[in-house]
Amino acid sequence: MSEASYTVTGMTCEHCVASVTEEITKIGSVTAVAVDLPTGAVTVTSDAPVDDAQIRAAVEEAGYQLTAS
Amino acid sequence: MSEASYTVTGMTCEHCVASVTEEITKIGSVTAVAVDLPTGAVTVTSDAPVDDAQIRAAVEEAGYQLTAS
Repeated sequence: MSEASYTVTGMTCEHCVASVTEEITKIGSVTAVAVDLPTGAVTVTSDAPVDDAQIRAAVEEAGYQLTAS
Repeated sequence: MSEASYTVTGMTCEHCVASVTEEITKIGSVTAVAVDLPTGAVTVTSDAPVDDAQIRAAVEEAGYQLTAS
């Protein structure tokens, strides 16, 4: 199991949280996504490590930005 | 044709706008809903006048509040 944390900017409400969660969940090995709306912290749990570029693409697909970590 | 304006509080993003628009559009005689996100102004166009209580119920169903007019 692998866990990684990111910061996403631009989320303003629970609809935004749902969009980001949905897009990241589509990544094959991802098993759980936890989002903290006030801070933009996104924690991704997966069966295998996920490439940051895939997370970034998913976040951007949802309409938000990943901050450089 | 009838047109009425309301102010809705709590909408923070385009997802919120979509939710409010969707719920109000479900009201039978409503033909168009226009939302201005920054001000919360919602303009409802309908074939016949719509009772404010129906608008209020739709807004609350979407998870937002109608301000007293």
